[in-house]
Amino acid sequence: MSTNKNFIKQITKRSEDFSRWYTDVIKRAELADYSPMKGMMVIRPYGYEIWEHIQSNLDKMFKDTGHKNAYFPLFIPESFLKKEAEHVEGFAPEVAWVSVGGDEELVERYAVRPTSEAIICSMYSKWIKSWRDLPVLINQWANVVRWEKVTRPFLRTTEFLWQEGHTVHETPEEAQAETLKILDIYKTFAEEYLAIPIISGLKSDAEKFAGAKRTYAIEALMPDGKALQAGTSHNLGQNFSKAFNIRFETKDQNLEYGWQTSWGVSTRLIGALIMVHGDDSGLIIPPKVAPIQVVIVPISRGDWKETILPESEKIMKALKNKGIRVHLDDRDTYTPGWKFSEWEMRGVPVRIEIGPKDMEKGQVVLVNRINREKTFVKYENIFSELSNLLDNIQNNLFNKALKYREDNTSTIDRMEELIKSIEEKKGFVRSGWCGNPDCEAEVKQKSSATIRIIEDKKDLKLSKCLVCGETAKKTVIFAKSY
Amino acid sequence: MSTNKNFIKQITKRSEDFSRWYTDVIKRAELADYSPMKGMMVIRPYGYEIWEHIQSNLDKMFKDTGHKNAYFPLFIPESFLKKEAEHVEGFAPEVAWVSVGGDEELVERYAVRPTSEAIICSMYSKWIKSWRDLPVLINQWANVVRWEKVTRPFLRTTEFLWQEGHTVHETPEEAQAETLKILDIYKTFAEEYLAIPIISGLKSDAEKFAGAKRTYAIEALMPDGKALQAGTSHNLGQNFSKAFNIRFETKDQNLEYGWQTSWGVSTRLIGALIMVHGDDSGLIIPPKVAPIQVVIVPISRGDWKETILPESEKIMKALKNKGIRVHLDDRDTYTPGWKFSEWEMRGVPVRIEIGPKDMEKGQVVLVNRINREKTFVKYENIFSELSNLLDNIQNNLFNKALKYREDNTSTIDRMEELIKSIEEKKGFVRSGWCGNPDCEAEVKQKSSATIRIIEDKKDLKLSKCLVCGETAKKTVIFAKSY
Repeated sequence: MSTNKNFIKQITKRSEDFSRWYTDVIKRAELADYSPMKGMMVIRPYGYEIWEHIQSNLDKMFKDTGHKNAYFPLFIPESFLKKEAEHVEGFAPEVAWVSVGGDEELVERYAVRPTSEAIICSMYSKWIKSWRDLPVLINQWANVVRWEKVTRPFLRTTEFLWQEGHTVHETPEEAQAETLKILDIYKTFAEEYLAIPIISGLKSDAEKFAGAKRTYAIEALMPDGKALQAGTSHNLGQNFSKAFNIRFETKDQNLEYGWQTSWGVSTRLIGALIMVHGDDSGLIIPPKVAPIQVVIVPISRGDWKETILPESEKIMKALKNKGIRVHLDDRDTYTPGWKFSEWEMRGVPVRIEIGPKDMEKGQVVLVNRINREKTFVKYENIFSELSNLLDNIQNNLFNKALKYREDNTSTIDRMEELIKSIEEKKGFVRSGWCGNPDCEAEVKQKSSATIRIIEDKKDLKLSKCLVCGETAKKTVIFAKSY
Repeated sequence: MSTNKNFIKQITKRSEDFSRWYTDVIKRAELADYSPMKGMMVIRPYGYEIWEHIQSNLDKMFKDTGHKNAYFPLFIPESFLKKEAEHVEGFAPEVAWVSVGGDEELVERYAVRPTSEAIICSMYSKWIKSWRDLPVLINQWANVVRWEKVTRPFLRTTEFLWQEGHTVHETPEEAQAETLKILDIYKTFAEEYLAIPIISGLKSDAEKFAGAKRTYAIEALMPDGKALQAGTSHNLGQNFSKAFNIRFETKDQNLEYGWQTSWGVSTRLIGALIMVHGDDSGLIIPPKVAPIQVVIVPISRGDWKETILPESEKIMKALKNKGIRVHLDDRDTYTPGWKFSEWEMRGVPVRIEIGPKDMEKGQVVLVNRINREKTFVKYENIFSELSNLLDNIQNNLFNKALKYREDNTSTIDRMEELIKSIEEKKGFVRSGWCGNPDCEAEVKQKSSATIRIIEDKKDLKLSKCLVCGETAKKTVIFAKSY
C-alpha cells in the first residue's frame, strides 16, 4: 500500500486544485505531453485512442446521414482568406503564415488553415453548376492551426485535430435543416458516447462564427462551474457563396447562390470528458470511448504465473473475442496494489481481480471505477455481468454529470443576483433577455459571463430582461466559459 | 449510344497517351482536382474513400502487430531538423517555412513537417529511460509537406497524406526484424488489397533515406515501364538516437542509445493502383478498396419506376446488409448506356443490369468491368455469384499485373544491352553489380535507370558486374522510376 500512496501524491487532488489536477492527470495518464513548441501538444497513444473512438463513431453518424469525407489543402492563399470580410477579421490575428517554400520566397504568403471555408468554397465554385449537383455534403478530418496566446492541453492548443463539415444546399430551409441535424448529432454523440449532458441552441450575434449567419453550439458545464463550448454548427446563409461565387442553375433555370453550412468538433471533446468525469484518483473514461474498458490484474503471489496467469489469459481472450477492449497487466515488476491505483488513475472503468481464492471458487472480482464497489462473478457470467456493469457506468457517469448541471443551474431575473451567482457558485444562469447587444455586453462587463445559448422556447416566467427590465424576447443561459 | 460515345471522348485513351490518360481519368472520375495552390491537390470523396479503405486495412495490420497511433505537432523548429546532418541535407531544400504566427515574427522559424523523425525523436528522448519502456511502436496518420518542383496528382504533390511509423528497440536485431516485418506488411497489403505485384528489398546507399542506416522499399512496375517506389521501411540504426539523445538503461544497467526504425506509405498508393489497373475506358478499382464494388443500373423503360426500380432497391438493400458496397443509380436524367460507361470509367468492378425481361425471369445480369463478360444470375444466387465475381476480379487484376511485370523483366549482363532495353522496352532489368557506387552512377548517367532494389539472394548466373566486369557481389533490379 505504500507504493499506492506515494503514487497518488503525484497527482494534485481534483477537489483541491481543479486546474492543476487537469494538467497533472493528462501528463501522468499519458494522454498528452507538451512539445518543445509553445502551445503545441503531442497526443500520446492512450489519448489518441480516445480520439479514434470519437472519430469512428461520429464518422459513422455523418455517413449514415449522407455525408462523405474528402481532403482539402493545408495552405490557403492570403487573398482567399480575405474574400469574406467578417471571416478574415475573425481569423487573421490567429494565423500562422508560410512565406518560404523550398528556399523560394512565395509571391503570396499562405495561411496554414485555421478553418477551411475559404479553400473549400473556392473549389465548390468550380464543382457546383446545377441544382443536380446539390446538396454537397462533405466532411473533412484534419489538423488546423490557430495561434493562441494562452493554451491548455486539449482545450486550446495552437494545433488541434478536428472534423469540419461543409455543405451546400438549394434552399435556405435545407441549409437550416442541415445545421440543426448536425447540432442534434453532436448533442446525441456527446451525451451517448461521452456521457456529457448538453444544452444546445443558437448563439447571440456577439458569439457567432466569423462569417456565419447563425451559429448553434453544444455547451457543457464543467465541474469548476464554467461552460465549455464543445461543438458548433453554422448556418452560413449565402455569405460565403457570394464571396466565392458559388452559383447554380435552379430547377426553373435561374441562377442562385448556394445556401451553406459548416460545423465542427475537435480534440477539445477529450478535454471535456476528462474534466466532467474525473475524480481525486484520476481519470474516469466513459466505457464507450475508453481505450481499455476492463483491465485484468492477477494477484501475483506464489505460483501465480503457473496458475492465475493462464486463467487470466483465458478470460482476456474470451472477452476480446466478444469485442471487449481488455488489457491484462501481467507485469511482475509491480505489485497488485500499485496496479490498482495506476489503472484507476488512467480511468479504466472496470478492473477484474483474480487471486488464488477466487480461482478455487471459479470466480473473479469486478471493481467499479466510480465507487470501487466489488462484485463476485462466476467465470461463466463474466461477460454478461461485465457488459451490464459497463452499461451502468456509462449511464451513471451521465446521470452524475446531469445532476451536477441541474444543481448548478439557477433561474435568475435580476442583474445583481446574476453577478452574485456567477461569482459565488458559478454554473449556468437562466435569464430573460431583451435581445439588445448592449444588455448582453453589460452582463459580460460586470460578471464576465456570456450568453452560452439562446433557448428554443421562451420561458414565460422570465418576462423581463435582467439588465434593462424591458420585455424579454428570449430566454438565455449565461455562464463564464473556457 | 451517342452520349456514350461523346462521353468516352472526354478521356484520352490509355493506349495512346498514358500520361495524359492518367490525369484525365483522375479529374473525370472525380478522384482529385487541382487546387489554386501550385502542386497541391484536393482529394475528392471518391478518391478519399479509396484512401479510407487503404487506411482502415493497413491500420488493422499495424495494430495486429502491436503498434499504436499517436499524433505529433505539424511544426518542427529549424534547430531540431538540423540535429541529424544527413537528414537536414536531404530535406531542407523541400521545406515550407512558417515565420509569422499571429502577427508576430517567430524567434526561430518552424518547418512544416516533411517527415517527423526530428520532432518524434525529441519526445522519445523524454519518454524513454529504461529497457522497460521498449519497444516503442508508434504510428502516425498525418499530412506532410514537401516543396516539389514537378508535381502529379497522387504521385508527387506538395502536400500528401501518409502514415509514418517510428519505433525504438533494445537491440539492432530487433530493429532490423521490425524493418523487415513492416516491409512484409507493405508487400502483403499492396498485393492482397491493391492487387499490385511487388518486388521488395534493400536500397543502395545512393537511394536510401536521408539519415537511415538501411532503406528497404516496395517497388511496382507501371504500364509505361517505369518503376514506382510505393513504400519504404528504414532501419535508422542509432543515427537519430545519438543526434537526439535517446538513451535507455539496459537490463545489465548500462546506458545505451536506442535502435530505431521508421516507415511510411502515402496517398501515392492511389496513383499506383490507378496506373496499374486502368484501361482505355477509365479506372478499374480492385474490389477490396473500391468505394463502390457494384453498381445497379435499372433499365429505365416504360413503367420502370413502378416495377424495376423497387426490385433494384430490394437487391441493393439485401447486398448492403451482407456488407457489399453497392450503389443504385436511379437517376432518370441519364440513359442506361450513359450510366454503363460512366461507371466503367469510374472503375466500379461489377455492374448489375436489370431490365423487364430479366425481371420476368427472376434474374439479373452481372457485368465484369475487366472484360465486360455477362453472367445471368437468378435472384437467389446474386450474393454468392457476386462474391465469387469480386474475388475473381481481385485475383485477375493481380495476375494480369504480375504477367505484365514478368513479361517486362529482363535478365541482362552487359551494359549496352541494358541501355537498349531501358530505352526500347523499359521495364525491370536484373543484373549483377559489384557494389561500387561508381558503376551504379554510370548506369544512371547512360540510361537514367537506377537500382530499385538489391535482391535478397545473389543470382549465380549473373556473376559479373554489368558495368566494370568485376565479380558481382549482388543481384539488383534496374529501372527508370517515377
